[in-house]
Amino acid sequence: MLPTVAREGDALVMIDQRKLPTKEIYVRCRTAAEVARAIRTMVVRGAPAIGVAAAMGIALGMRASKATGTQKFAAEFYKTCELMAATRPTAVNLFWAIDRMKRSFTAAAEAGESVDQIKDRLDREAQAIHDEDVASCRAMGAYGADVVPAGARILTHCNAGALATAGYGTALGVIRGAVAQGKRVTVVADETRPFLQGARLTAWELVRDGIQTTVITDNMAGALMGQGQIDLVVVGADRIAANGDTANKIGTYALAVLAREHHIPFYVAAPLSTVDLTTPDGQHIPIEERKAREVTHFGGNQLTPAGALVWNPAFDVTPHRFIAGIITERGICRPPYTESLKRAFDTEAAIPS
Amino acid sequence: MLPTVAREGDALVMIDQRKLPTKEIYVRCRTAAEVARAIRTMVVRGAPAIGVAAAMGIALGMRASKATGTQKFAAEFYKTCELMAATRPTAVNLFWAIDRMKRSFTAAAEAGESVDQIKDRLDREAQAIHDEDVASCRAMGAYGADVVPAGARILTHCNAGALATAGYGTALGVIRGAVAQGKRVTVVADETRPFLQGARLTAWELVRDGIQTTVITDNMAGALMGQGQIDLVVVGADRIAANGDTANKIGTYALAVLAREHHIPFYVAAPLSTVDLTTPDGQHIPIEERKAREVTHFGGNQLTPAGALVWNPAFDVTPHRFIAGIITERGICRPPYTESLKRAFDTEAAIPS
Repeated sequence: MLPTVAREGDALVMIDQRKLPTKEIYVRCRTAAEVARAIRTMVVRGAPAIGVAAAMGIALGMRASKATGTQKFAAEFYKTCELMAATRPTAVNLFWAIDRMKRSFTAAAEAGESVDQIKDRLDREAQAIHDEDVASCRAMGAYGADVVPAGARILTHCNAGALATAGYGTALGVIRGAVAQGKRVTVVADETRPFLQGARLTAWELVRDGIQTTVITDNMAGALMGQGQIDLVVVGADRIAANGDTANKIGTYALAVLAREHHIPFYVAAPLSTVDLTTPDGQHIPIEERKAREVTHFGGNQLTPAGALVWNPAFDVTPHRFIAGIITERGICRPPYTESLKRAFDTEAAIPS
Repeated sequence: MLPTVAREGDALVMIDQRKLPTKEIYVRCRTAAEVARAIRTMVVRGAPAIGVAAAMGIALGMRASKATGTQKFAAEFYKTCELMAATRPTAVNLFWAIDRMKRSFTAAAEAGESVDQIKDRLDREAQAIHDEDVASCRAMGAYGADVVPAGARILTHCNAGALATAGYGTALGVIRGAVAQGKRVTVVADETRPFLQGARLTAWELVRDGIQTTVITDNMAGALMGQGQIDLVVVGADRIAANGDTANKIGTYALAVLAREHHIPFYVAAPLSTVDLTTPDGQHIPIEERKAREVTHFGGNQLTPAGALVWNPAFDVTPHRFIAGIITERGICRPPYTESLKRAFDTEAAIPS
């Protein structure tokens, strides 16, 4: 299992996703501020992984607190939560994980626990968020595998793999689930400019797993579909609104339009922690705009002339009507999503398919 | 005027398009073989520019010939034509320009001209191809400007500008034509992976012209269209089949699909030298596949892990049904293209619009 985020004593250890695939460098964060910075600068990225890192970062930060009274400890706790919440705006898993840590804190306070007891509880909660994420990915993989035809040529975008989660992956979890069922599949990975998560991370993960992977530039996906070379599209998600509209890495919307033009099923794989029932539709999802330099420069080389403007949204929104199904840890939600997503939350059992 | 390709004495001088926008370096080719190499390695690129460079390269090569008899000179001439024809397979302007040089050669031979006279004739023919290309671009600009609404936000792909032609440009010629009519327009330039012609060349040309230009990664075009930020798409072409199917830089097809989804007019601008009536449809256009390294590496940095496969077609084909009009130097051809393209060749006058 890839160590996307792991607690080692008084540090949170993450593989530096900016350096892959040529360098495997691990970053040790010793404070909550260092974890927040790692999220903001994309040492760790991917909606579920961001949530896990934030929760573990809060637990790490509070473990180091020198506060002896619960009141001072509480003030520090909420400040640390704010620090994490300010890192990136789109992935709702971040806010979901912070909310879970807050609920855990409140329960501890209400139970009259000591500072040391609360520290233990926060550690356990963060580790639970981590472990549940892996379990969710494996469940998504098992459910999602059913929609993968044997021999499928699967297109994916960005990295929705082990590196984007606590392990196993969402979209790549579905691919791994199909392989685990004995299906032979091949994968086409969009390189995913400007950060190249597909070329650098998805290809790296899948090649390690021995799954045949072809990297293409983002603008080749349409031509491949036009030639009948793609059977299925599976992507992850950063936030899914109540009606099924899905924010995911920039370029996802274009893929969804192209998939429909070519009658190719387009699936989203995401845990319920990515579903935000309080956001009614895609128009209400905040979209992070990142620095122009990600587009204007690469590896120290300047790509664009001085004077050119740049637009650099990190995500776009795919309207629910383009999505054949949303693969969750409780089964596959189908349209109308307003009902099926709500039902997924309401039931402990799997969704009948 | 940008000196895309210019004859200076015994050399052909080209701006090195691989080095822009950060370095303006001029390459001097002194032999036909050096010109062929410049075309193959994309010192010069863009269908019309390739044709012009090939014709001027043939004239340059034959000027240096030491043959005294016409028979030996003819053998050298046809060998030089073969050398040029083997550089790149998709842009039909290359073969069109070589054919024109061959016809000029045949006419000279039939007229009983001496080797020196033939050299002069080849020089004149190559220069005529160059000059006519500029004139064609200006005519395209004037016709095409009519389809550009005032205030239009125009998306273009790759570089179909002065650098892709002998000067002024095809798609960028249309934009320049609109500006010349006093229309205020803004341009969005796809960066156009893997060679980044949009980020490096289109943005460079337009910023020099004072036209507001925003560079986006290729995967952002769909999201921009979805937000209602694009009014018009104009691209160039590398080969247009008799039925209007158009080969152009990889990614063009996806843009055409996205444009139709969003009810945005999609235009192709190209001189008739790009139209190949002997190719019935897009399925018969040969598509160049370039080296994997263009995708796997950038500026010395490795982007993909060892073991990942790569697909790197330089072009794709946009079926004619996605194209609102083909802007030529004789006017705008409209569907059905089988008729309108043929008519454009048959008339000396402008196409009635």
